[in-house]
Amino acid sequence: MNKEQPSALHEKKGVTQPLNTSDTAINNVKRFRSREVNPDELAEKICNGDTIALSRAITLVESTNPEHSKKANQIITTCLPKANKSVRIGITGVPGAGKSTFIESFGKHLTSLGKKVAVLAVDPSSSISKGSILGDKTRMEDLVKDKNAFIRPSPSGNSLGGVARKTRETIILCEACGFDTIIIETVGVGQSETAVHSMVDFFLLLKISGAGDELQGIKRGIMEMADAIVINKADGDNLKPAERAKVEFKRALHLYPPKANGWIPKVLTASALYDEGVENVWKLIENFRTQTTESGHFNQKRLEQQKFWFLQTIDEQLKSNFYQNPVIKNELKEKIAAIDAMQASPFAAATDLLNLYYNL
Amino acid sequence: MNKEQPSALHEKKGVTQPLNTSDTAINNVKRFRSREVNPDELAEKICNGDTIALSRAITLVESTNPEHSKKANQIITTCLPKANKSVRIGITGVPGAGKSTFIESFGKHLTSLGKKVAVLAVDPSSSISKGSILGDKTRMEDLVKDKNAFIRPSPSGNSLGGVARKTRETIILCEACGFDTIIIETVGVGQSETAVHSMVDFFLLLKISGAGDELQGIKRGIMEMADAIVINKADGDNLKPAERAKVEFKRALHLYPPKANGWIPKVLTASALYDEGVENVWKLIENFRTQTTESGHFNQKRLEQQKFWFLQTIDEQLKSNFYQNPVIKNELKEKIAAIDAMQASPFAAATDLLNLYYNL
Repeated sequence: MNKEQPSALHEKKGVTQPLNTSDTAINNVKRFRSREVNPDELAEKICNGDTIALSRAITLVESTNPEHSKKANQIITTCLPKANKSVRIGITGVPGAGKSTFIESFGKHLTSLGKKVAVLAVDPSSSISKGSILGDKTRMEDLVKDKNAFIRPSPSGNSLGGVARKTRETIILCEACGFDTIIIETVGVGQSETAVHSMVDFFLLLKISGAGDELQGIKRGIMEMADAIVINKADGDNLKPAERAKVEFKRALHLYPPKANGWIPKVLTASALYDEGVENVWKLIENFRTQTTESGHFNQKRLEQQKFWFLQTIDEQLKSNFYQNPVIKNELKEKIAAIDAMQASPFAAATDLLNLYYNL
Repeated sequence: MNKEQPSALHEKKGVTQPLNTSDTAINNVKRFRSREVNPDELAEKICNGDTIALSRAITLVESTNPEHSKKANQIITTCLPKANKSVRIGITGVPGAGKSTFIESFGKHLTSLGKKVAVLAVDPSSSISKGSILGDKTRMEDLVKDKNAFIRPSPSGNSLGGVARKTRETIILCEACGFDTIIIETVGVGQSETAVHSMVDFFLLLKISGAGDELQGIKRGIMEMADAIVINKADGDNLKPAERAKVEFKRALHLYPPKANGWIPKVLTASALYDEGVENVWKLIENFRTQTTESGHFNQKRLEQQKFWFLQTIDEQLKSNFYQNPVIKNELKEKIAAIDAMQASPFAAATDLLNLYYNL
């Protein structure tokens, strides 16, 4: 990246920790942390727009402690009737597409219009690499200071299913807290786009123009999911290539069958760094919302998504219960060995194992 | 289709059933059908190349009667050590691509080389439409008369999983019976290609050249699965368009990432109707087999496929057991209603239902 250009990305010098910290301060923090959480009180505060209560509730949602999960469920159930009144926007793009810069510029535009914006992330890799997207809040320096914006990094988790569940529940809490625009960021790794696509109303693919074939390197499934493609960094020398990329993407999008909701995916250019074009993206999303709300598709999609997550959770849990069972774990290895040695057919081996499981 | 051209497709006039049939004949059929099947005897006959025994065993595999399934499993287990010595070829293509003509011409070429060819099909729609592919054996008039060919229509079934299981088990029986080349036909409906792809060594996509964009109308996933694309009906006026299509497909295949086994998918032209080009398809498959056998990928893929079907069967059965449970069936409706009314989150509702299930 050209060092002369303004950038939302900053590297900060490491901060050396002071050698001593006051014991009183430490005890205060510990006391505060161990204080009993009252779910009803927290839910009430959330519904009154208290973002500190919101943060605490999200921490409960993300916790693996069963006691915390119980409280989190109670809060969510109380918050549910206040939720669902928002537009949920998914944003994906390869690293380098300028997602953070775009979200910062887009988010600031929204708060300038009086919107309340929550920015969440789905990044199942974050638990391994610790390199969570949005993890470094300094990447969105202006937005993070905006009192009408709420930024939360990706929950960590071993499975995409777990990360997705936590994010879905966080959406409910943010909506109950009065956030009317939910932005969910994800990176192009594995199945995370599909998960995000299944929890948003509008799915936006962020691209930059590059040398050669513009369509190379995009997973076809992601193109198919997109409600809009925004070609970012359309400024300076990049302007012409971005316009050419726009034409190519438009042509490519024509190859896909029309969407069930009648929406025809659009291609736009923007320069988030110079705050150019983001207002058009928002206008497009507003058009989308109006059009699909009138046709009933907006609400229908949400109902379908809820059912999808319901069934998805059941399926995952059924499998997890089976494969985590110690008797099954042991026998599974032997069955696979028997299959490999042509001593059992896959179907007979599966039937045996299932009979064992249901008679445990 | 030009009526002047020879065709493998024949329409036959309906046959009126005679009004009366001899009671003795009916009783003979009934006695024969009810005769106790001895699984060991049947398995022995199959391993000696008896195709009548093979047909009877496949009927047991396809039966929904639990007694039959038990016998089928016994036969399969006995046959297993004799199986696995074949090449399994999947063939797909839209209706009109000339699959039957191609399989007839290709099959005859193989038997002329001394091969024993079994032709099976996976068509989950056949149970609904009764319009099973390969159902009308007269579509392959010459091949059906060939003593070294065995043709069996698609098993019927309500689920793709069920149809796939039956076909997988039929492959084992055919191999034990001495068939060294297994061809599995499927049509481009839903997920059936994926199922067939997971049970074959080599996956062949049959296409014809058409007006306009050659790539239109192909599901991208199918292109990605193909080890070869054969442009059929490359004869007469079609020759030039077929050559052009070949170039387009070659270019399109380059866009995909290389396969793990190092195989680069090939594009060929053929005219099955005039028996032209099918020998090249077989040469290609032999090359594929030699190359992947030497590298170890051939056998590795089979082991992976067996494991896939093993896990797949478990997953399907776990779900089926849950969703077919009458208590769950009833409660499921109420939970979905609660979710729709925003009274329960999808995750809380799923957790409730799972707790109910595990405490039944």
